[in-house]
Amino acid sequence: MINGKIDLRSDTVTVPTEQMRQAMCTAVVGDDVYGDDATVNELEALAAEMMGKEAGLFLPSGVMSNQLALFTHVNRGQEVILPDNCHIVAHEAGAAAIIAGAQLRTVQNVNGEMPLDIVEKYIRKDPNDIHQPTTALITYENADSDGQVRSLEYMKRVRELADRYHLPVHLDGARIFNAATVLGVEAKEIAQYADTISVCLSKGLCAPVGSVLVGSKEFIAQARRKRKIIGGGMRQVGILAAAGKIALTEMSKRLGEDHANAAYMADALSTVQGLEVYKERQQINMVFFRLKEYPLTSAELVRYLAEHNVVINGEDNGIMRFVTHKYVSREEIDQVVDLMKRVG
Amino acid sequence: MINGKIDLRSDTVTVPTEQMRQAMCTAVVGDDVYGDDATVNELEALAAEMMGKEAGLFLPSGVMSNQLALFTHVNRGQEVILPDNCHIVAHEAGAAAIIAGAQLRTVQNVNGEMPLDIVEKYIRKDPNDIHQPTTALITYENADSDGQVRSLEYMKRVRELADRYHLPVHLDGARIFNAATVLGVEAKEIAQYADTISVCLSKGLCAPVGSVLVGSKEFIAQARRKRKIIGGGMRQVGILAAAGKIALTEMSKRLGEDHANAAYMADALSTVQGLEVYKERQQINMVFFRLKEYPLTSAELVRYLAEHNVVINGEDNGIMRFVTHKYVSREEIDQVVDLMKRVG
Amino acid sequence: MINGKIDLRSDTVTVPTEQMRQAMCTAVVGDDVYGDDATVNELEALAAEMMGKEAGLFLPSGVMSNQLALFTHVNRGQEVILPDNCHIVAHEAGAAAIIAGAQLRTVQNVNGEMPLDIVEKYIRKDPNDIHQPTTALITYENADSDGQVRSLEYMKRVRELADRYHLPVHLDGARIFNAATVLGVEAKEIAQYADTISVCLSKGLCAPVGSVLVGSKEFIAQARRKRKIIGGGMRQVGILAAAGKIALTEMSKRLGEDHANAAYMADALSTVQGLEVYKERQQINMVFFRLKEYPLTSAELVRYLAEHNVVINGEDNGIMRFVTHKYVSREEIDQVVDLMKRVG
Amino acid sequence: MINGKIDLRSDTVTVPTEQMRQAMCTAVVGDDVYGDDATVNELEALAAEMMGKEAGLFLPSGVMSNQLALFTHVNRGQEVILPDNCHIVAHEAGAAAIIAGAQLRTVQNVNGEMPLDIVEKYIRKDPNDIHQPTTALITYENADSDGQVRSLEYMKRVRELADRYHLPVHLDGARIFNAATVLGVEAKEIAQYADTISVCLSKGLCAPVGSVLVGSKEFIAQARRKRKIIGGGMRQVGILAAAGKIALTEMSKRLGEDHANAAYMADALSTVQGLEVYKERQQINMVFFRLKEYPLTSAELVRYLAEHNVVINGEDNGIMRFVTHKYVSREEIDQVVDLMKRVG
Repeated sequence: MINGKIDLRSDTVTVPTEQMRQAMCTAVVGDDVYGDDATVNELEALAAEMMGKEAGLFLPSGVMSNQLALFTHVNRGQEVILPDNCHIVAHEAGAAAIIAGAQLRTVQNVNGEMPLDIVEKYIRKDPNDIHQPTTALITYENADSDGQVRSLEYMKRVRELADRYHLPVHLDGARIFNAATVLGVEAKEIAQYADTISVCLSKGLCAPVGSVLVGSKEFIAQARRKRKIIGGGMRQVGILAAAGKIALTEMSKRLGEDHANAAYMADALSTVQGLEVYKERQQINMVFFRLKEYPLTSAELVRYLAEHNVVINGEDNGIMRFVTHKYVSREEIDQVVDLMKRVG
Repeated sequence: MINGKIDLRSDTVTVPTEQMRQAMCTAVVGDDVYGDDATVNELEALAAEMMGKEAGLFLPSGVMSNQLALFTHVNRGQEVILPDNCHIVAHEAGAAAIIAGAQLRTVQNVNGEMPLDIVEKYIRKDPNDIHQPTTALITYENADSDGQVRSLEYMKRVRELADRYHLPVHLDGARIFNAATVLGVEAKEIAQYADTISVCLSKGLCAPVGSVLVGSKEFIAQARRKRKIIGGGMRQVGILAAAGKIALTEMSKRLGEDHANAAYMADALSTVQGLEVYKERQQINMVFFRLKEYPLTSAELVRYLAEHNVVINGEDNGIMRFVTHKYVSREEIDQVVDLMKRVG
Repeated sequence: MINGKIDLRSDTVTVPTEQMRQAMCTAVVGDDVYGDDATVNELEALAAEMMGKEAGLFLPSGVMSNQLALFTHVNRGQEVILPDNCHIVAHEAGAAAIIAGAQLRTVQNVNGEMPLDIVEKYIRKDPNDIHQPTTALITYENADSDGQVRSLEYMKRVRELADRYHLPVHLDGARIFNAATVLGVEAKEIAQYADTISVCLSKGLCAPVGSVLVGSKEFIAQARRKRKIIGGGMRQVGILAAAGKIALTEMSKRLGEDHANAAYMADALSTVQGLEVYKERQQINMVFFRLKEYPLTSAELVRYLAEHNVVINGEDNGIMRFVTHKYVSREEIDQVVDLMKRVG
Repeated sequence: MINGKIDLRSDTVTVPTEQMRQAMCTAVVGDDVYGDDATVNELEALAAEMMGKEAGLFLPSGVMSNQLALFTHVNRGQEVILPDNCHIVAHEAGAAAIIAGAQLRTVQNVNGEMPLDIVEKYIRKDPNDIHQPTTALITYENADSDGQVRSLEYMKRVRELADRYHLPVHLDGARIFNAATVLGVEAKEIAQYADTISVCLSKGLCAPVGSVLVGSKEFIAQARRKRKIIGGGMRQVGILAAAGKIALTEMSKRLGEDHANAAYMADALSTVQGLEVYKERQQINMVFFRLKEYPLTSAELVRYLAEHNVVINGEDNGIMRFVTHKYVSREEIDQVVDLMKRVG
């Protein structure tokens, strides 16, 4: 429950835990634009260390974390190769063309992965051909916003391909701890295959606000300068960083629970008549299904559940998504499935 | 004192008060990207109301507040007329050319004001001349970062000029409550002469993070969309908004104290041999002076005071600035002046 | 022969005909930025009429013609759906991200066509979702730079899809007369399925310089203004327009000859040992092949032919392209094939 | 006379001479994007040599020449210091903010010159301060579009200031030969004080189209690449370059005639009642005046003269400008003055 409602729209809706609130209440803070906020400095060091990188940078959102990575890796007019359905393409409001001025080369995913022969074909080979842009970056997600987890083996192959062409790799690790949980490894084993990673503190980890971009010292120094340009430099933001530290150290360990709940919910929804549940996509804390012969349309279902204090999003290209998180219990899952059955 | 130091660099260094920390600890929050954060909604409504505008938008920094105003008011390649020393020109890292894609038309200030005949000359008169950009906006500060306050009379004349050419006016009101305190009016009497205002919650008002951009409902709806592009959309940011509400309601009333302290400090510094204090610029919480025949250089003074736990900035184009705020007492001012005398 | 060489690199290498030179020599000209160049005005009206559109705009290059179309159709951060191998993606130096600030959504071609179900999937459906950019344009080529011609039937289906979502269509018609020749129709039958078309005057049509962008009066008026921004406004450019008129009226009729020569060359190259000729791609004035078991590498072949006054480009992703045009005769084709055989 | 009219709007209206037409008719041309156009190569080398620089680049317009200089000198968000009334600010449609993404720092001219103390004040001194953009370029015109000529002495002082801060200087030399004529020196004596210069071939020099940007080999190689991005790469453009060569070698010598005619016209206009002629601004081929107590308004005067086949522009901020050139004879000047007297 969050504010009296069962909220299945996204794990972004999670509110801070009591422990986080206490930490925010008592955090030592300073002016972070001057580098004086001890709590921010601790959080940045912690995130870097957990990802096996040299440095980190606190940012107000996952969008800014990804966009700042592009802005720092890419010169205007250079190309970025990335999956057609990834967050940067799909849900960042076209920012890549505005802030970084990057040209996107979108690859159609096959079973959740960019086919590497297509990626290689898209890499520009002739830097002297003035007709062509140059390739500046390969980027993708793990876990992705479609709920899929990339294998370490695949990540290694992306890395090797990138190395062959001397290209950096940015990983959108908004849900890297979900991926690590599924793969049963530490996050840094995933992070090793990327030069830079954006790590979200909110979402499943429950911090109220923020993302940390990690990478080499030199990269982060450049990103820090560019953060100022897009207005991401904040002052006594140790308040938020205090919650972020708990997100990384404590909350990152409990995501298996959300995954199990999502699997439980997928099973339960399969018993609702008229729904088709995409069980093969069931890896993290997301359940995907469609209304096949269900008595309600997507919009009607949204309204119906809202009347019973259950908040969901409508369909996107025909597909519905329910997301589990710390504030969704098994009991509440039963309650929702029950409501949906009563209609069907 | 902040973290054991007397910090005169800026009022941005202020840390949240105890009352703010309590409010943050207990704030009701929700996912603000979905519009669900009650505390943010209250803060935005409060800021709008205090400025006499229809709507407000919470942002992570004053830079983003100003830049989002430009991004929303101005189409790429259009012109903005503004003072050559204002924050947007001087301290926002060239963002106006990157995010809004605005062409700046900088006016040399005379006694802290843009001469209105120059402003009028700069306004483009012929929208059909394809050689010329079109003018999109006039913007300036009150109070400005040089410590000056614009009179209501001047603001009215800017408004009238803008109206004559159907141009909007954006006010950088990072320190609008300082201006209101000096002018002895409510902030909304200042705000009435602008279409949009960015109001900082940190600086003298002591909130840890944030700025509110206010304007018409339609303008703020557009700005909200564009905020997403630059990564300024945050999640359970009611944590910060809770402090922001106290900043607006409580802290805005105590700025006279900082002004009095600055005046006191200006007087005291005048008694230090080798300093020239710009008393005529003494209006808000800033003291300006230069090292005329002082035994230390600016860099040496910075180091010397640092050894005594006093933090200051070096000179900028030959001028030193000390800033007073809630965490600088008269006693501490005496202490600093004393230290400076012992050298001189 | 051009300047003593057989030049198979591209049809862009064609030089103006004698008739064009005479026309340029005697053209009535004026200052086109003031709209005073009668010859330019005639050319623009002629191009518009041949494409069945209201107005035209003369431009110094095909790149500018396409990029100005994007700059006019698309607001910064909006999306353009287009084939992954089209000229705008592959050969315009990343300009779309710089000038228009467009986000490209590239579709992998299947048999030379964007699958329409993928195009439809990529179209953004919810203009109110602030996470998503909005779709602004669908664009593709006919004929394309891979030598393929789209059928009228396909174009019609693209048009209908675009109409269903109220989207404009821009056609890169750099070689629209080649397509018209293959399809056996007038160019305007192709042009009817697009809102705007860029038509090149150089390439196979032999004018020295230029492209005309055509569309509605309103669109062209906007494009004219934006042309000034990117420096495409020229003065007494009737000199070039005079050649352009001949390109449209006379040279557009003779492209069948180039196509027949390319087919002839494809047959002849098939008889060279070690080459694999892509005959199924043989539609216009381009021959594609690869060096399978040929004794020379691509770079060696370039050098070898250069020694015999034959100019060709090296391979691109493993594929070689020879292009026929007015200045390549059958006899010269025999000569080149003979040279290649003597090695093989 | 041009096309039967006396055209005093600008020297951009000049049409090519007979000699130019002959040269265009017979020019050797090639594909300049491949570097194969001998006439373009000659023109670029000639312009470079006349300006004392290493290399040149042919461009379709003066706007593109200036904007490409900015695009090459300046990184996005960096600052350019320049006069508030120069062509880049006033007449290039806001392009600097779009293409280069430059932040303009405009200086109010005093007697036609940027005061160097203001320029120095505007130069950013602290590259490590992340709040500030960095200064990338100083640029100005000689002669300027207000008809003024900068002295060599002034240019030298700008150069020295720029050198002191390691900044490049770009000169908008659209009318550098007018300046050279007034100063009685070779153009390269002016050009020596700038790193790059854009030199117009049309305007007083009568070529139909084009500008050459000159600078170091390295700079021009970068600019050539960026020219492709903005669509300035043209194919058999030796046609235009042929006229450009004559512009540089022949036409540059006859500008004294235009200046004498302008002085003559200024004197003559002084005898028309109700006009105030700005004789102190009389240096090149431009006459400035205002309608003081003249019986017609500016718009009426435009219409009245148009009825008598005399074409002029209306006033700009209250000032009228007549421009002399090769196609305005003394007799025609008398005729125009006579027409204006008959009214007055």
